[in-house]
Amino acid sequence: MIVVMKVGSPEPEISRISAEFQSWGLNPEKIVGKHKVVFGLVGETVDLDPLQIQEISPWIENVLRVEQPFKRASLEYRHGEYSEVIVSTPNGNIPIGKNHPVSIVAGPCSVENEEMIVETARRVKAAGAQFLRGGAYKPRTSPYAFQGHGESALGLLAAAKEATGLGIITEVMDAADLDKIVEVADVIQVGARNMQNFSLLKKVGAKDKPVLIKRGMSATIDEWLMAAEYILAAGNPNVILCERGIRTFDGKYTRNTLDLSVLPVLRALTHLPIMIDPSHGTGKSDYVPSMAMASLAAGADSLMIEVHPNPAKALSDGPQSLTPERFDRLTQELAVIGKTIGRWPQPQMVLA
Amino acid sequence: MIVVMKVGSPEPEISRISAEFQSWGLNPEKIVGKHKVVFGLVGETVDLDPLQIQEISPWIENVLRVEQPFKRASLEYRHGEYSEVIVSTPNGNIPIGKNHPVSIVAGPCSVENEEMIVETARRVKAAGAQFLRGGAYKPRTSPYAFQGHGESALGLLAAAKEATGLGIITEVMDAADLDKIVEVADVIQVGARNMQNFSLLKKVGAKDKPVLIKRGMSATIDEWLMAAEYILAAGNPNVILCERGIRTFDGKYTRNTLDLSVLPVLRALTHLPIMIDPSHGTGKSDYVPSMAMASLAAGADSLMIEVHPNPAKALSDGPQSLTPERFDRLTQELAVIGKTIGRWPQPQMVLA
Amino acid sequence: MIVVMKVGSPEPEISRISAEFQSWGLNPEKIVGKHKVVFGLVGETVDLDPLQIQEISPWIENVLRVEQPFKRASLEYRHGEYSEVIVSTPNGNIPIGKNHPVSIVAGPCSVENEEMIVETARRVKAAGAQFLRGGAYKPRTSPYAFQGHGESALGLLAAAKEATGLGIITEVMDAADLDKIVEVADVIQVGARNMQNFSLLKKVGAKDKPVLIKRGMSATIDEWLMAAEYILAAGNPNVILCERGIRTFDGKYTRNTLDLSVLPVLRALTHLPIMIDPSHGTGKSDYVPSMAMASLAAGADSLMIEVHPNPAKALSDGPQSLTPERFDRLTQELAVIGKTIGRWPQPQMVLA
Amino acid sequence: MIVVMKVGSPEPEISRISAEFQSWGLNPEKIVGKHKVVFGLVGETVDLDPLQIQEISPWIENVLRVEQPFKRASLEYRHGEYSEVIVSTPNGNIPIGKNHPVSIVAGPCSVENEEMIVETARRVKAAGAQFLRGGAYKPRTSPYAFQGHGESALGLLAAAKEATGLGIITEVMDAADLDKIVEVADVIQVGARNMQNFSLLKKVGAKDKPVLIKRGMSATIDEWLMAAEYILAAGNPNVILCERGIRTFDGKYTRNTLDLSVLPVLRALTHLPIMIDPSHGTGKSDYVPSMAMASLAAGADSLMIEVHPNPAKALSDGPQSLTPERFDRLTQELAVIGKTIGRWPQPQMVLA
Repeated sequence: MIVVMKVGSPEPEISRISAEFQSWGLNPEKIVGKHKVVFGLVGETVDLDPLQIQEISPWIENVLRVEQPFKRASLEYRHGEYSEVIVSTPNGNIPIGKNHPVSIVAGPCSVENEEMIVETARRVKAAGAQFLRGGAYKPRTSPYAFQGHGESALGLLAAAKEATGLGIITEVMDAADLDKIVEVADVIQVGARNMQNFSLLKKVGAKDKPVLIKRGMSATIDEWLMAAEYILAAGNPNVILCERGIRTFDGKYTRNTLDLSVLPVLRALTHLPIMIDPSHGTGKSDYVPSMAMASLAAGADSLMIEVHPNPAKALSDGPQSLTPERFDRLTQELAVIGKTIGRWPQPQMVLA
Repeated sequence: MIVVMKVGSPEPEISRISAEFQSWGLNPEKIVGKHKVVFGLVGETVDLDPLQIQEISPWIENVLRVEQPFKRASLEYRHGEYSEVIVSTPNGNIPIGKNHPVSIVAGPCSVENEEMIVETARRVKAAGAQFLRGGAYKPRTSPYAFQGHGESALGLLAAAKEATGLGIITEVMDAADLDKIVEVADVIQVGARNMQNFSLLKKVGAKDKPVLIKRGMSATIDEWLMAAEYILAAGNPNVILCERGIRTFDGKYTRNTLDLSVLPVLRALTHLPIMIDPSHGTGKSDYVPSMAMASLAAGADSLMIEVHPNPAKALSDGPQSLTPERFDRLTQELAVIGKTIGRWPQPQMVLA
Repeated sequence: MIVVMKVGSPEPEISRISAEFQSWGLNPEKIVGKHKVVFGLVGETVDLDPLQIQEISPWIENVLRVEQPFKRASLEYRHGEYSEVIVSTPNGNIPIGKNHPVSIVAGPCSVENEEMIVETARRVKAAGAQFLRGGAYKPRTSPYAFQGHGESALGLLAAAKEATGLGIITEVMDAADLDKIVEVADVIQVGARNMQNFSLLKKVGAKDKPVLIKRGMSATIDEWLMAAEYILAAGNPNVILCERGIRTFDGKYTRNTLDLSVLPVLRALTHLPIMIDPSHGTGKSDYVPSMAMASLAAGADSLMIEVHPNPAKALSDGPQSLTPERFDRLTQELAVIGKTIGRWPQPQMVLA
Repeated sequence: MIVVMKVGSPEPEISRISAEFQSWGLNPEKIVGKHKVVFGLVGETVDLDPLQIQEISPWIENVLRVEQPFKRASLEYRHGEYSEVIVSTPNGNIPIGKNHPVSIVAGPCSVENEEMIVETARRVKAAGAQFLRGGAYKPRTSPYAFQGHGESALGLLAAAKEATGLGIITEVMDAADLDKIVEVADVIQVGARNMQNFSLLKKVGAKDKPVLIKRGMSATIDEWLMAAEYILAAGNPNVILCERGIRTFDGKYTRNTLDLSVLPVLRALTHLPIMIDPSHGTGKSDYVPSMAMASLAAGADSLMIEVHPNPAKALSDGPQSLTPERFDRLTQELAVIGKTIGRWPQPQMVLA
């Protein structure tokens, strides 16, 4: 932690501040610059809050953090070794991580009825997906919009799982539903709007199911990793990060701006696996294939893609869903690049 | 709702779409432009989802909403009459709204101990505040930072209320705490990070206490009003909107960018009362007074200002808190403008 | 300048870097933290580029600037004394600055014809304005939109000046027009889109007319001050900063987001006078009055407000222009607050 | 163009507006909705300004554009056929466009000396680049930073061209330098900060050299295409669009956010070729390779990559430059994917 003093800070105040830091068990090394005095705080500073330090004195101009604010999520925490999240599914254990083939998550935005979800599951499995996504509880901007079929949809997801053996990924919006969700889901999803719902993060952190945490619409990389840190700190080491587009100044053509640079950035900061969701990331099915290709080439560990048997009749998010036919073609295109870069699953893997 | 067809849309598809709209009970008026065909949908369109409509055909280029997506929050819903939220406090009923004097909410970010909160309450009451704010449950970016004293802090807020008669405003982060909070709070606060925690919105909407809903960090005006709509639709008509700064590209000097233009914008859209929080809005106590003055001059119905008896020792958000002395001076400065524009409370009101 | 080394940086590399800094004439003070080594660079660092330093070694994690990047624009440069820009007009010298009454700039977006501009000048002068704004050269998003009447409009501005004695503010878009503009304008305006047109900045910096520099649509405070620094460094000390709204994620109701917090932020950083333009800042005339009031209460030194005798027929930016009648009323409302806070011009000042 | 009237608009006003549109030669089709009246304007509306229309009456709530604001840049303008920009170089004509192999532009941020630029040109040519980039005139945030070697650097670029036959791409900042630049450059670059320097756009549009126009830091897709439209409208049909990262809320790890979704979005809107610059797009050389791979997989027509023989000594933008060795490796990695998707140049092409 670096503490920058204002120009003209009085000497007694500088001494007082130095003593204050010492009383906290820190070693404040003072640097006298041409115009300003700066302290480098040596000691256990990771839990200190820069805002808190700033308030020690009105003469403090700025406090700059040198350490990252996250611990368990950091790559250093695992000494540079990338973690893998192994998801147990009826079709076997599927590992997600940098040293594994890319895994594909596909399915509709929301679960509508048994035929639809089972049919979609069969189609995406045939195309090569390892996981079925589908919302039982849906976060909707309007209270008058379809809110998901809730508990009954969980039963339908169970049926699709039984029919295909695919792993199930579904979103939790309310901690009160968590126990029911955990019975069916193989991965619990925390949505973008709840990325900083800290009460919920603590509660999913107390479960022993892997957690997929989507990046908030305007979450910085640090905030996103701190959200993951909440889950890790609660005892759950199986966290997957999922980029789904951020909010920027231009929403005319895409609903969000897919930030693919998180791939190299996160690789340098964290050991956690990284998934990309080009469907929410762009909001329009026409744009999904090229962004899926880009995600794969840039090094994603997993892709989440919306597929709907009849997008025109989807109860939510239709415009960003691919048809099963378009999804078939996309997985074939992805396979070409995936094999080239050595990240495509071998046929037997899925059956393992 | 306006549906814009792509250039070159085939005639049979245009007829099919028209028939589809009719089957929904809508009257699609077709306009044949120079290059494009456009439908104006007449009928009950307010609950329709533009994304849903877009999926009827790949030939639909765009769907433009003509109606606002919010109903109960709209100014039209009350035929142009602004609502007032009347908060019952030991010192009497305090009305918040466009046709009432500005009310002042002040207090620390988080409740630290009894002496501190009671002392702060006394100071801000003496300076003219009608409400005491103070967090029992704190949303913190880091799981390792102070999370608020929780239930015991609610007891301290009750003590401060008893000592001063001030109304209490405190934040709910977890629906499980709602019953305990409602026992003490006169206004329930939903924080920026939970603005789209729809489960929580429904639950506070089911209570009979006024709700203060802070704007999310990157929430559009429409999304914010739709969050209010969740509460209104759940049966609670007493909603106050609070602007607290949005996230923009420049965070070097201010933590957020206080968007004061919401004042004239919301006045034209909604009947709900509007509060401004310049403390979170700027994140630095030096900037609070001028932004408080601006808020008042621009027409705010209420101001929320952080005050801490000893900002240097605040357990959270210290740098944005005013000292009681600075707050005294600020209320005097505000009073000068407030009286000029006819929005300052008469002395007897506070004592009522 | 603070240089943060990566965890595990090898000792010889740290020594090499230290020697490199010394060879630059700097004194690198080394702090050995718990995990990281940090250098504080003492010496003449203000012109160093953090990016340049970072490239000395791949083991450098980050370079943090402690000094501000601007010099002549800084408040320290004038030892805490705020500057005033004195504009010579036929009606006398008008000072703009923190220690002077608020000055009002008003007029249409673009100069349309002699009758219109002279009439507008008379109306805004009668209402209390000291300056007439009006575009001869207009930056337009579309090449097919009206681009301003150019040189002939400069003649019309001269006529309005002669008729009223008001100071003239008009925008330069092309350095080739600068000489002609300088003959008429009392203040040269550099528009938001040219804020980082560094060639133009150098050229206006070489003139001896005051320069108004509008904040770029997504310019940080530092970038804006560095643009001013270009003009100051070229020898022109008379620079006025003008906030006109920034680009954020929500453009549905306002064209830009007026960032009024620049008022307290700039006051702490720079001695330069600050103008606010609520007309471009919001893009809608309905929102201008409350934002003008807010600007004044927050401490603006000058206000720029669009006024058009017939907004419905304005050739550009009509929707944000006030009618002369609405502008009359606004100046009366502003006067009430302006007198209260001691920033309103005395009647004789305008006539001086 | 769709004109939405406010709720409760008086019938005579609606008639008056309708007549006004007719007097403009438009056919206003009126739709009477449940709450609002809407006009669909049929006729020549592409040059109309929505803001202008809005001012016809205070009863107009909103004006929605149905046509795109750009004409010559639109895909429809060429009836769905993508254009190619053919650049004449000593090594032959290099076509850039959707139906051609990907072309690679590489080189340093700024031209430093003859040895450096010729050596870099040789290295990037050997690795497979067709174009050399290098700045003679540099836009720098600070007036005190290195501003480029100017005219003398143009001579060095000519020497590098002579030595290698590579096409030259260099930036114009001031129209006064245009003639000198055109003597050496095969493609004229307009930088992000000048994307809306409309005077400059008109002047490069009057030249007969291809123009590369970088997206402004916060330019919408529409604004970017309108900037291209300025050049096209001035008579120059050879325009290449270059994405170089946009400004968002998180600049901690990357300098900008590379918006790769422009690839599918622009493909649907415009016939113009698309280049991606992952070097400026991320600002850090570590992130460049994965973003270059992503760009190629997503369908870029050209890549611009900074390469510097000794990034640690680069006079500008060092941290984002690759070493020639890293660039060699990157082109090999790109070739693997490029061949797979059929976009990699055949060896003889470069020599053609």
